[in-house]
Amino acid sequence: MAKKISQAVVKRLPRYYRYLETLENEGVSRVSSSSLAELLDITASQVRQDFCNFGGFGQQGYGYDVSKLKKEIQKIIGLDRNYNLIIIGAGNIGRALAGYKGFSSEGFFVKALFDVKVDEKETNGVGIFHMDALGEYVKNNKVDIAVITTQGSVAPSVCDELVSLGIKNIWNFAPIDLSVPSDVTVENISMSESLYVLSYRMNNEA
Amino acid sequence: MAKKISQAVVKRLPRYYRYLETLENEGVSRVSSSSLAELLDITASQVRQDFCNFGGFGQQGYGYDVSKLKKEIQKIIGLDRNYNLIIIGAGNIGRALAGYKGFSSEGFFVKALFDVKVDEKETNGVGIFHMDALGEYVKNNKVDIAVITTQGSVAPSVCDELVSLGIKNIWNFAPIDLSVPSDVTVENISMSESLYVLSYRMNNEA
Repeated sequence: MAKKISQAVVKRLPRYYRYLETLENEGVSRVSSSSLAELLDITASQVRQDFCNFGGFGQQGYGYDVSKLKKEIQKIIGLDRNYNLIIIGAGNIGRALAGYKGFSSEGFFVKALFDVKVDEKETNGVGIFHMDALGEYVKNNKVDIAVITTQGSVAPSVCDELVSLGIKNIWNFAPIDLSVPSDVTVENISMSESLYVLSYRMNNEA
Repeated sequence: MAKKISQAVVKRLPRYYRYLETLENEGVSRVSSSSLAELLDITASQVRQDFCNFGGFGQQGYGYDVSKLKKEIQKIIGLDRNYNLIIIGAGNIGRALAGYKGFSSEGFFVKALFDVKVDEKETNGVGIFHMDALGEYVKNNKVDIAVITTQGSVAPSVCDELVSLGIKNIWNFAPIDLSVPSDVTVENISMSESLYVLSYRMNNEA
């Protein structure tokens, strides 16, 4: 896709997908842009504009076909294929992610964990290896996404190592911004930032 | 604070805080709005506008005093006090959060976990109790924030129970939107949505 889609639209795609999945499970076969708009707290016109970015999905008088639209968005997000993940940092969060069933059900498979300290051979059925073995592992296995769940202080050097090994996609849980070459994609998820936003809102908006 | 601050500004506050903390640890005593702007990938004028919402913090020719500014933002976010947290859902993510040291260091203390299935008495030093004991616990203990780490399907009923018990602040990890009365604050963190954004970007922007 040549056209650059705005980040706001990209962030809404997973929510469209989630709602359509729920609707499909509930046996709903058609949905209007205004219903989707209400669920996402935007306007119906914004929904139609969002979809225009991807060709419009041909809404007719009756709204969109739920299953068809879900499949289109699934394909756009890239949820129509499988991904191999490795996790760097076998602490509480890394181990929890290795056992999180919600990922594998959508095609994201955690294949290995790496850490500088290896206390166990595996967690939740996923092998834990020493960081020294990372280079060899990446050379011999297809790794689509590396997840960084280390402490913030070591995350930049871990990231540099991953980049030097040819990893192109990084999902970063460490509370720090990572510098990567332009051909590497980093997506950050910051639990602290989310908690601090809650803290701000409970202290200032209540 | 009477004035309603935009969500974009609220979301930047934790990042300002994090950068100022890093600068302070590095022994930097003054910082300009343009340096902060570069770190946050916004303009210096936006930084000054952000701070204007809170009274401006009096930048002079030399920039802001790092420690003073950090303390101001800390106070605005509400990180100058302690919070008692309970976690509903003692699965992988709930247990990981109970052991996450980054929260207690900022004043967020996980006091108890609750689940419909209790296999162990505690995890990471935090007691695990049956959901049947939740009402009694909330009655007898100060709970500032309830964290929902259950599956999406049960999260709405868990949320209703928390609200009926008088909980006013909810940090939601379940991949579902929760309906709450206007005096209850919900902050969502969706790991799936973040992973799907990465998936989209690696498939479409690479």
